[in-house]
Amino acid sequence: MNNIAVFPGSFDPITTGHESIIKRALPLFDKIIVAIGKNQNKKSFFPLEKRKQWIEQVFAPYKRVEVVVYECLTVDLCKKMKARYILRGLRTSADFEFERSIGQINKQMHRSIETVFLLTTPELTALNSSIVRDIYRNGGDVSRFVPKGVDIKM
Amino acid sequence: MNNIAVFPGSFDPITTGHESIIKRALPLFDKIIVAIGKNQNKKSFFPLEKRKQWIEQVFAPYKRVEVVVYECLTVDLCKKMKARYILRGLRTSADFEFERSIGQINKQMHRSIETVFLLTTPELTALNSSIVRDIYRNGGDVSRFVPKGVDIKM
Amino acid sequence: MNNIAVFPGSFDPITTGHESIIKRALPLFDKIIVAIGKNQNKKSFFPLEKRKQWIEQVFAPYKRVEVVVYECLTVDLCKKMKARYILRGLRTSADFEFERSIGQINKQMHRSIETVFLLTTPELTALNSSIVRDIYRNGGDVSRFVPKGVDIKM
Amino acid sequence: MNNIAVFPGSFDPITTGHESIIKRALPLFDKIIVAIGKNQNKKSFFPLEKRKQWIEQVFAPYKRVEVVVYECLTVDLCKKMKARYILRGLRTSADFEFERSIGQINKQMHRSIETVFLLTTPELTALNSSIVRDIYRNGGDVSRFVPKGVDIKM
Amino acid sequence: MNNIAVFPGSFDPITTGHESIIKRALPLFDKIIVAIGKNQNKKSFFPLEKRKQWIEQVFAPYKRVEVVVYECLTVDLCKKMKARYILRGLRTSADFEFERSIGQINKQMHRSIETVFLLTTPELTALNSSIVRDIYRNGGDVSRFVPKGVDIKM
Amino acid sequence: MNNIAVFPGSFDPITTGHESIIKRALPLFDKIIVAIGKNQNKKSFFPLEKRKQWIEQVFAPYKRVEVVVYECLTVDLCKKMKARYILRGLRTSADFEFERSIGQINKQMHRSIETVFLLTTPELTALNSSIVRDIYRNGGDVSRFVPKGVDIKM
Repeated sequence: MNNIAVFPGSFDPITTGHESIIKRALPLFDKIIVAIGKNQNKKSFFPLEKRKQWIEQVFAPYKRVEVVVYECLTVDLCKKMKARYILRGLRTSADFEFERSIGQINKQMHRSIETVFLLTTPELTALNSSIVRDIYRNGGDVSRFVPKGVDIKM
Repeated sequence: MNNIAVFPGSFDPITTGHESIIKRALPLFDKIIVAIGKNQNKKSFFPLEKRKQWIEQVFAPYKRVEVVVYECLTVDLCKKMKARYILRGLRTSADFEFERSIGQINKQMHRSIETVFLLTTPELTALNSSIVRDIYRNGGDVSRFVPKGVDIKM
Repeated sequence: MNNIAVFPGSFDPITTGHESIIKRALPLFDKIIVAIGKNQNKKSFFPLEKRKQWIEQVFAPYKRVEVVVYECLTVDLCKKMKARYILRGLRTSADFEFERSIGQINKQMHRSIETVFLLTTPELTALNSSIVRDIYRNGGDVSRFVPKGVDIKM
Repeated sequence: MNNIAVFPGSFDPITTGHESIIKRALPLFDKIIVAIGKNQNKKSFFPLEKRKQWIEQVFAPYKRVEVVVYECLTVDLCKKMKARYILRGLRTSADFEFERSIGQINKQMHRSIETVFLLTTPELTALNSSIVRDIYRNGGDVSRFVPKGVDIKM
Repeated sequence: MNNIAVFPGSFDPITTGHESIIKRALPLFDKIIVAIGKNQNKKSFFPLEKRKQWIEQVFAPYKRVEVVVYECLTVDLCKKMKARYILRGLRTSADFEFERSIGQINKQMHRSIETVFLLTTPELTALNSSIVRDIYRNGGDVSRFVPKGVDIKM
Repeated sequence: MNNIAVFPGSFDPITTGHESIIKRALPLFDKIIVAIGKNQNKKSFFPLEKRKQWIEQVFAPYKRVEVVVYECLTVDLCKKMKARYILRGLRTSADFEFERSIGQINKQMHRSIETVFLLTTPELTALNSSIVRDIYRNGGDVSRFVPKGVDIKM
C-alpha cells in the first residue's frame, strides 16, 4: 500500500513557499497530488488554466508530483485518489488555528485521513499568495516570491 | 430582577456548537434570547426565515429560550430586552481576540452590560457555521454538525 | 438549588484585576467562593495568612463572597462546596489557551462543572500578580495595582 | 539626514487609536506622512475626500504631519518620500502576526526600510475602523471613537 | 533508504496524547524512536527508569517503535540514529510558536532534518504531562489520561 | 533634548538577534543604553561580568551605545538616564502578548515613557538566549547564534 498525500490550495499563484513544502515533503510520500480547489463562491485572481500550468511547469522534473483540479470536499478527493494524507505548510499561529479546525473536521468526516504539517522555512514565513497578488496589483516585482520559470508578467 | 442573556449571531446555520453553549448556559440565566442579526451588508447563505425556524424548532421544549431577529447594535437590543448579559462561546484564541475587542467596545458603550463566555466542548472546537456551509456547498453530509431535527437537505 | 461559583487562584497578591472580576460576577451567582490554592511545589511570595487576610478585608462588605484555602483539585473543591461553576477572568490569548486546557480537563473529570469567563477591563488587561511582585521586589509603588486597603508596605 | 516615517492605512475612518499613535510617535521622527492607500479592489465606506479632510483637520496644528494619498506599494511610496521608516500601531496578537508578515516582505523588497511599532494604549486596544463603521451603520454614536472635530453625522 | 523519525520528549509521564501521535504516525515511517531527553537542569517528577519502562510496555506489540534515552542535542541524536525526521504533536497555538522556534533552529543546525507535525485529536488537545502531574499530586485519578497498562498508583 | 532609548534584558548571552535590533535602531536614537538587569531571584547561566564584557566588545566601535547594569525597575532606570524610550525586539506573538503587558504597565507608572518595537529579521525569529544556552549545555556549536567575537568556548 502506497503513501499518497494531497496538497490542497488555490495556488493563486503558487509561491516559493508552496514549492519548498512540496519538495521537502517528497521523500516522505510515494506520491504528492497538488490539488487546485475550484471554488465557485470565491473569484480567483489568476485564471485556473494559468495556475495549473505554472504548477505543472515547476514540477515537470518530479515524476511523483501530480496536479489535479477538484470541486468536491478535500476528504472526498482523498478517498477518490486513495490518499491517506493531507499535506499542509504551517507559517504562523493564525495559520495554525485555521488549519487545526479544518484538520479536525476532516478527521471527523473520514477517520483514516491524517493531516501532516511541515514548517515553512524562516525566510518564507511572511509569504503567501495574497501578498504576492497585492505586490503584483501595485506594480511591484514578484519574481523573487514565485518559483523560477513562473512568468507573471506585468 | 431577572438575569437575562442575549446570545447574538447570524446562525447561518445553527450548529451543535451553538446548541451546546445555550443548553449549558441555561441554568445560569432566567432567560436566554437567541438573537439573529440581520446584516444588510453581508448576504447570508440560508434565508432568514429558515435560520429562525431551525432555532425555534431546536429550542421548542425550552420555555426560557426565546428567538428574535434584530437590526440594531447588540447593546441596544440588550437595553430594549432588559438583558444585562451577552453570552458567547469561545473556541480558539483567534476567536478570543475578536470577542475581546467586541466585548470591550460594548462595555464602553453600556457600562452595565457584561459579556459571559463558556468554552466549546473539545469535540466541537473545530466547528463553526462557515465550515458547515463549505461542507454543504461541496455536497458533504452536514447532519452531524447541526442539531437533531435541523433538516438541511441536499 | 443555588448557583455557587469557585474563583480559584494563588492571589499572590490579589490585584485590582481579581477584585474587578469578582465584583462584576456577583450578580450572576448566589455565592462566590474565593479559593486560595495551597501548592506544596511552588513557593509563594507573600505568606498564605497575609494573602487570605487581604482578600477577606477587600470583600468584608460582601456577604455573598467567602474565602477558603484548599489543597485538593479545584473540581474536588467544587464538589465539596456544591459549586457548579468555576469563575475565571480572561486577559490575553495566552491566558485563554491555558484556561481552555484546564477548563476542558476539569470538565472531563466532572461533567457537570462549567467554567464561566469574564473579560478583564481594558485598563487592567496588562496586570497580573507576577508583575505586581516584580514591581514590589524592585522597590516600585504597587498601591494602584492592588485593591484599596491592601497594605503592601515597602 | 532626516528621519521620516510613513503611517499607511485606509483610515476609513481615522480613529482615536490612529490619532494616539501619530501624536506619540511625533517626537521620534522629523516628519510623519499619513498615507491613505487607494485600493482599487476594496471599496471604502467613507469617500476618499472625506477621509483625507478629517485627517488634515485633526493634524492641522501639527506642522510635521503631512497627509498624502497613494496608489503604489508602501515601500515605493517610502522611497519616493525618502522615508526610512514605516510606523504602525500594534493592538492584538492577531494584528502582530499580520504586521510581521507585511513588515518582513517590505524589508525583503527594500532592505533599508524599517517598520517601527508603538503599542496602542489599553483603553484603545479594542478599537479599529471596522468596529467604528459597524456602530455607525447600526445607528450608534461613534463620536467617542473618532478624534475631536471629526463630524461623522448620522 | 529508510524513513526514521525521532519523537523526543521528557514523557513525565507518557500520556494518551503521546500514544495517539505515535500510533497514527507509524504508517508514515519505517521506524519511530521515542527519545527520552535526560535534562540535568530540570528535575523530573517520575524517575527515568519508570518513564522508560512505561513507554516500552505501551509499545511492546509495535516492533517498529524503539525507546532510547539521550543526553545530547536532538539533532545530534537524529544524526547518530540516521533519522531524517523529528516527529511532534501540535496541540495549541502556544505549542506551535514554541515548536516552530525549535524546529527552525534544528534546521539551521542540520539542513537535512525535517520536523513533521501531526495534530492531537480534539478530545486530547487539553492534555499534557504537566496537567497529569498536577492531578496526580492532588490525589486525582489519572488513569484516563495515560495509556492502558501504565500503573501510576496513588 | 535628545532621544535616548534603553534596551533592557538579561543577555544571557547576547545573541545575533539582540545585535541586529540594536544596530538597526541606532539611526532612530541619539543614544542606546544596553541595560543588563540584575535579578536576585533568577540565577543567570553566564556570569554578569562575562555578559557585560561580551556586549561592550560587540559595540566597542559604536560610540552611541552604552552598557550598564541595573537592579531597579526599568522605568526608574529610564528616568535616571533621561531616556524616554524603551527599545524591544518582537519575535513571535507569544513575545508580543508578554511585551504588551510589560509595556502597558510601564506606561501606567510613567506616562511619558514609550516602548518602541522593531521586528527581528526572519532568519533570527526562532532565536533567543534560552535556546543558545540549551545548545551550549548539550555541547552544540553556538558560534553562529552569537555576535562575532563573543568567545563562548566549550
